[in-house]
Amino acid sequence: MTDKVVAIIGGGVIGGGWAARFLLNGWDVRVFDPDPEAERKISEVLDNARRSLPGLSDVAMPAEGALSFHREISEAVAGAVWIQESVPERLELKRKVYQTVQEHCRVDATIGSSTSGFKPSELQGSATDPGQIVVTHPFNPVYLLPLVELVTTDANDAPLIERARALISSLGMYPLHVRKEIDAHIADRFLEAVWREALWLVRDGIATTQEIDNAIRYGFGIRWAQMGLFETYRVAGGEAGMAHFIEQFGPCLKSPWTRLMDVPDLTDELVKTIADQSDAQSGAHTIRELERIRDNNLVAMLRALKTQDWGAGALLNAQDKVLRGVLALGLEQVDIGQPIVTVQRAVPLDWTDYNGHMNEARYLQAFCDATDRFMQLIGCDAAYISSGGSYFTAETHICHLREVHAGARIEVRTRVLAGQGKKMHLWHEMFEGKDLLATGEHMLIHVSLETRRPSVPGAVVEAGLTRVAQAQAGLEHPEGAGRFVGAPR
Amino acid sequence: MTDKVVAIIGGGVIGGGWAARFLLNGWDVRVFDPDPEAERKISEVLDNARRSLPGLSDVAMPAEGALSFHREISEAVAGAVWIQESVPERLELKRKVYQTVQEHCRVDATIGSSTSGFKPSELQGSATDPGQIVVTHPFNPVYLLPLVELVTTDANDAPLIERARALISSLGMYPLHVRKEIDAHIADRFLEAVWREALWLVRDGIATTQEIDNAIRYGFGIRWAQMGLFETYRVAGGEAGMAHFIEQFGPCLKSPWTRLMDVPDLTDELVKTIADQSDAQSGAHTIRELERIRDNNLVAMLRALKTQDWGAGALLNAQDKVLRGVLALGLEQVDIGQPIVTVQRAVPLDWTDYNGHMNEARYLQAFCDATDRFMQLIGCDAAYISSGGSYFTAETHICHLREVHAGARIEVRTRVLAGQGKKMHLWHEMFEGKDLLATGEHMLIHVSLETRRPSVPGAVVEAGLTRVAQAQAGLEHPEGAGRFVGAPR
Repeated sequence: MTDKVVAIIGGGVIGGGWAARFLLNGWDVRVFDPDPEAERKISEVLDNARRSLPGLSDVAMPAEGALSFHREISEAVAGAVWIQESVPERLELKRKVYQTVQEHCRVDATIGSSTSGFKPSELQGSATDPGQIVVTHPFNPVYLLPLVELVTTDANDAPLIERARALISSLGMYPLHVRKEIDAHIADRFLEAVWREALWLVRDGIATTQEIDNAIRYGFGIRWAQMGLFETYRVAGGEAGMAHFIEQFGPCLKSPWTRLMDVPDLTDELVKTIADQSDAQSGAHTIRELERIRDNNLVAMLRALKTQDWGAGALLNAQDKVLRGVLALGLEQVDIGQPIVTVQRAVPLDWTDYNGHMNEARYLQAFCDATDRFMQLIGCDAAYISSGGSYFTAETHICHLREVHAGARIEVRTRVLAGQGKKMHLWHEMFEGKDLLATGEHMLIHVSLETRRPSVPGAVVEAGLTRVAQAQAGLEHPEGAGRFVGAPR
Repeated sequence: MTDKVVAIIGGGVIGGGWAARFLLNGWDVRVFDPDPEAERKISEVLDNARRSLPGLSDVAMPAEGALSFHREISEAVAGAVWIQESVPERLELKRKVYQTVQEHCRVDATIGSSTSGFKPSELQGSATDPGQIVVTHPFNPVYLLPLVELVTTDANDAPLIERARALISSLGMYPLHVRKEIDAHIADRFLEAVWREALWLVRDGIATTQEIDNAIRYGFGIRWAQMGLFETYRVAGGEAGMAHFIEQFGPCLKSPWTRLMDVPDLTDELVKTIADQSDAQSGAHTIRELERIRDNNLVAMLRALKTQDWGAGALLNAQDKVLRGVLALGLEQVDIGQPIVTVQRAVPLDWTDYNGHMNEARYLQAFCDATDRFMQLIGCDAAYISSGGSYFTAETHICHLREVHAGARIEVRTRVLAGQGKKMHLWHEMFEGKDLLATGEHMLIHVSLETRRPSVPGAVVEAGLTRVAQAQAGLEHPEGAGRFVGAPR
């Protein structure tokens, strides 16, 4: 029996997103939603999550948990250590749900609410055990965006809060612990401020929905995606410092620019104006198409931030470290007499090209990752490299044998064909299941990073390489090694 | 004499960013700034721009224009067709500048103001020729972010507005034409709304600057970077449509969440709180370091959006098309008797790896781009591919001869070693200047995209390939072709 059991109460876009997050991180997911369409709706969210989330990671994610649907809350919460509530934003409804949940759930279970507006003290209200209830407010698409606002009250004890933080982190998400509860927590206060201002701009005919979206995404939106508000202004302020910047910027705040003290009346006319403009802007795509475009964009940008180890990309890298599994083992723990598993991952959405399959350069990227892992295994790790030694690739030969598509799980296994002195001759085989997709043959030269010239590796690295080379010396010479381009098959 | 002459009045972060944008797009840039530090400050912005902007493009940018500094406005504006004013936000100062500018500039020149707050009618005020003055408000860093708010009045005639739009587009930027002038235009109204809310959150001890930045960048920030506000909500609202979404969301707006009717007093205490929190958050990096981190992140994310041809990435792709130069020529216009130039570009910031040089997989990416261009040249273009035929790479051999670093301009020249029937055997050489960096040898097979199996190319493609193969048949066989990994040199 596993302890990774979660109950999802309410299976709309948000509840479905949570279900996908948990499921793809290896949890068993038990769903309650009275909507007869719930199963279809959740399966659509799951489709989107399955195509985007696994490839966001540079290592293999755990095997999916089991998904089940239940007719009663009592049945759904049985055995669950976490209960995520995402029912509509009506306080009385939420309280009623908690009552039923608490009659049947484990006493050590935690109930997280996806509410974007209510304070946890309001949710706890007259509950049997208020201390079980916290706010865990995520952002759509829940399966890709890392932010979770964790809002607690004095009724929640410290160990429960710590468990909640750990759980959110284990899902590859970021628990932003809001220490003082306020309406709408933190992020949605900004969203609301912007939304009000946007309504006025449309209502007054200053800008269309498309112009507003462009003003955001071509300017501060992409800036905020990596540094947020304050760090962006810190950079803009320059060496004079943040205090100086605020003093300069301060007087502008006195101008009565924003009209946010009022709320524009949502007249039929205004609603129609927005809906019409939105149709003109985005109507060429269905919502399903837009969801996939959005997810493609998010995956590509998040993976870009991974290469910089910054912002949401740094969170993903940290999560990858936890998930490395067999790729975290040391030389002692690996069967080096056989080809060594050096890559296990899903093909990301952004590795596909116009031919509808993984682009040829991404094969080399995966082989390059395999080489990196092999180097690390023999002691040529980050610490060794920062001490001034590394391997540079001198020569590469790739045979493409089969196509592979986004989402496929691939594995690279690596052999040493020769390893002595400055040379390291590697052979990679890439598989999807039992199918050989490609081979990579690589000659690497050990270099001094100071002179950028060939040099003898350090003793530890030389010993590690020799050990693997000797252990694999008895393996049959791989078919295709030593091949030149265009050689007869 | 060129018509691409711009005068930059005011050379701070914004003026320097404009100078870099123009200069790297081939304009002669004439700077006026009374600050004795102006030359150093602009050269720092230029350093940042030179390391980040050229590699953002997938084709070579024009040769840089000439940069000069001038002691008088009269001298700086001589011959300029565009004058960009970025002096401090004081209306009287700006008006005085325009007076001097208009005494000396071309009558057909346009004066664009970088003001973030003033309306163009205020700037035009009592000017000699109000019709010459418009607002062109950019976003920092100006050399990377595409948004320019173009704000005009009835005093500006239609041809001038059209020229201003065209100029902004030609710099790879996006002219958002604000049709009705209002204080702070469009984007800064959102920034101010968010800034006010943020000040309250810090002042009331709800969140620190770092927590607010994380709330933005891990959640809606990255969402907004690609779709903005309305399109994001359109997707969230689902098939029910935008009108339905607003009706659901509307009631929330009645809650008095935001406190934006008030402006928090910028007491010494609040300023110190923010500055201290910002130090704790970002103080480990100098401003120069943060600028480069920001630019690395922006380049990586913008390039990610290019792969999706979406948002700011779609703007960049459109700009690349304009800049293709020799890469836009047809088979008739190219000297096919020699190796054909198929790639001309700068190495982007995000192509560098832990060894401090261009990663091996990026060599193959550049060779893959070269193959794509060659395919297009022989008629295997997007239209042909969508009709069901394409080439898949079966085999690749790369020799790495020299390192290359971010920012370097590289060129790939391509030869056909053999081309008949289903096979296409290509040879790429990558150069930096006269230095050969790497060679790539590739065997491609023509396939049917329906059956995914080898097939004979269409007549046009076969004829194109044959023509190049015959024209190059007399070239000497390249050294290294047919080489296997580890062969003696």
